[in-house]
Amino acid sequence: MLQINKYPEIKYWRSLINRPSILQEDLEAQVKLIFNDIEQNGDAAVVNYTLKYDGVQLETFLVSPSELNTSKNLLTDELIAAIELAKNNIEKFHVSQIENSNVIETSIGVSCWRENRPIENIGIYIPGGTAPLFSTVLMLGIPAKIAGCKEIILCTPPNKEGKINPAILYTAQLLGINKILKIGGIQAIAALSVGTQTVIKVDKIFGPGNQYVTAAKKYALNYKVAIDMPAGPSELLIIADKYSNAEFVAADFLSQAEHGTDSQVILLSDCEDKLVEIIQHILSQVEEIPRKAIALKAIENSSIILLKNIDACLDFSNLYAPEHLILAVEKPINFVSSIQHAGSVFLGKYSCESAGDYASGTNHTLPTNGYARNYSGVSLDSFVKKITFQEISEIGIQNIGPSIELMADAEQLVAHKNAVSVRLKSLNKDV
Amino acid sequence: MLQINKYPEIKYWRSLINRPSILQEDLEAQVKLIFNDIEQNGDAAVVNYTLKYDGVQLETFLVSPSELNTSKNLLTDELIAAIELAKNNIEKFHVSQIENSNVIETSIGVSCWRENRPIENIGIYIPGGTAPLFSTVLMLGIPAKIAGCKEIILCTPPNKEGKINPAILYTAQLLGINKILKIGGIQAIAALSVGTQTVIKVDKIFGPGNQYVTAAKKYALNYKVAIDMPAGPSELLIIADKYSNAEFVAADFLSQAEHGTDSQVILLSDCEDKLVEIIQHILSQVEEIPRKAIALKAIENSSIILLKNIDACLDFSNLYAPEHLILAVEKPINFVSSIQHAGSVFLGKYSCESAGDYASGTNHTLPTNGYARNYSGVSLDSFVKKITFQEISEIGIQNIGPSIELMADAEQLVAHKNAVSVRLKSLNKDV
Repeated sequence: MLQINKYPEIKYWRSLINRPSILQEDLEAQVKLIFNDIEQNGDAAVVNYTLKYDGVQLETFLVSPSELNTSKNLLTDELIAAIELAKNNIEKFHVSQIENSNVIETSIGVSCWRENRPIENIGIYIPGGTAPLFSTVLMLGIPAKIAGCKEIILCTPPNKEGKINPAILYTAQLLGINKILKIGGIQAIAALSVGTQTVIKVDKIFGPGNQYVTAAKKYALNYKVAIDMPAGPSELLIIADKYSNAEFVAADFLSQAEHGTDSQVILLSDCEDKLVEIIQHILSQVEEIPRKAIALKAIENSSIILLKNIDACLDFSNLYAPEHLILAVEKPINFVSSIQHAGSVFLGKYSCESAGDYASGTNHTLPTNGYARNYSGVSLDSFVKKITFQEISEIGIQNIGPSIELMADAEQLVAHKNAVSVRLKSLNKDV
Repeated sequence: MLQINKYPEIKYWRSLINRPSILQEDLEAQVKLIFNDIEQNGDAAVVNYTLKYDGVQLETFLVSPSELNTSKNLLTDELIAAIELAKNNIEKFHVSQIENSNVIETSIGVSCWRENRPIENIGIYIPGGTAPLFSTVLMLGIPAKIAGCKEIILCTPPNKEGKINPAILYTAQLLGINKILKIGGIQAIAALSVGTQTVIKVDKIFGPGNQYVTAAKKYALNYKVAIDMPAGPSELLIIADKYSNAEFVAADFLSQAEHGTDSQVILLSDCEDKLVEIIQHILSQVEEIPRKAIALKAIENSSIILLKNIDACLDFSNLYAPEHLILAVEKPINFVSSIQHAGSVFLGKYSCESAGDYASGTNHTLPTNGYARNYSGVSLDSFVKKITFQEISEIGIQNIGPSIELMADAEQLVAHKNAVSVRLKSLNKDV
């Protein structure tokens, strides 16, 4: 634990980027059963599962207006102001992602463009458990609202008293999300996928969750529902040089390690002394955090590796494709163009991962488990479809029509060709 | 067949938008076997499946430089020029989708932006069979090249002589795609997903295919491979008014119907006389096309519906969420804002679906089967990841740090809070 792996040869790198193996129980049979039951029995089945898994019998899942309205009173003014600040920053960044239509005349008389339309009905899943993730309400609710999604349904499990954490309620209400349902686990994803008397069937489901929720989201794909991205444990790769602040890097290391026992942190440097210093800070800081046991377990999945220079560290990072990448080095901007695969990148001494987790403005729903190679994090794009349009004039079809005829003919699709030929003939006739 | 359904009540609309049911054989066992075999035995297993399914024993899958170079000689100059024109238009439209980085200062001292990076290794599948779909090579290869994907592997099944259609070879070569492999079916998707001695493991697989390819692409998700979108039969919805040219609409109807026996066309109008006229043209035009038998079968899946006005037609279209939507009406631009769910839209008399299939510039790889509700068609976005970056200054962390501390604390993530606290403390100390 916390040993430095010194100058491993490149041929061994791939063995060093193994993610913690996830014990994937085959939950499909259980998931299928719950989906089928809710498809047949609707809300009544949801009531049963909520009693079984959350230990509470609910008359109604829908959070009442009075629960929503009183949530604010249960938060401190300071926390309310903090949420407001985070909301503003996240809004600014996601509003900047709005794409304007841009009409392109590809040939004379042939105009093509794209327009965005919101995905109509969205489900947001917020896990229960110890940490009330109201920050995830901001990260998913804000772009959904900017996109103009019509229905935004938030599902989150109730506690044994049938209540939802007030910070989650307040944040949802602040964003104008009023359909909050006290449903958790597989039954939440199933209800959003098939629809019940209370729950509208949605087009896309977002949000983190445990292995049950993950298995249910995967199964939801069979119901023409889309999901945000494949799930995996959270991870961070830090690159430090001799100028790094060891105390800061150690704190970042632990902020990732406290997430869960399956979290992973990779720390790379070209400076052995700095690594030794960082390790000392980790060992002292870990004593001070309430989630010490979780962090210590996560540290077992983690690696500290000494490499010959920062370019080698970047090569290693690209091989790993981290969810979060902190460049705690001098002049980090110089290395940006070398980054090929990462979810979100934090440049320099004061850009800690916590900033992106909460309040800088970037989204914290990011690809994990190596999926930064082929997926983007959640953004405004995740909540819209881009529809292409084209308008072709008489001149336009005369310009491109003969080429279409030849190509359709070569693909042996004569009716495709005819659709052009009848138009060209009619234009020739008119002349 | 070709009967007009007159003014159906809205409550029956949903029953009218049923897609042709696809007989989904459970192919997963067969797919799994082939994936496992290729994972263990690599190229040797691919050779065996190619002999078994394509009826040809190949020494090497890779199309040779001489095969590539001679492909041009086998095409007419006219077809070569047509492909060139299509390439230029598709390039112009997809280049226009390049997104520039835009740095947003969300709070003073907090800069956030996104940068695109290509998805590194791409697989493109082009089906064999009667129609050599070189147009799909353009539609997938052009944005992959613009994105800067490093490896682009094109797989397509060989014929019994071990050859590939020269139009496919020529088009690939024109785009600078030189890794063309004579592999088809499940074995192609498996080789791209797991990698063999000859085939590099890719990050994302694109392209159409039959039910075997579709099942294999779905299974590929288990290998950390992404796919373009869920597959389904092609479909078209046409809205015609009394001003429509019946001959043109009939030709468009048939261009969709000839695709496959499972294709679907929905024709809507507020003018009964026009529908009657269109039907007459369909009946006469269908006699003239080589794929008449396929078109007649597809017509059985199709519907012709009379509704009270064009707005009702658009409501119906939004319920159906067509892959292709033709607005063959007067002033189609007036109806654009009402379109909520569609893959690609064709406005006015001369904008036939064939134009978008081949040469106008828009992409023809589009969401089917109702997925236009929650997926976009293929675009440049499909070939890149958008990585978020942030750089926070001393002032920046002082501006947002206290809010992050409060939020992390409320989520009971104290190490997240500490990552900010150590920074704020050090700044206070410096003062």
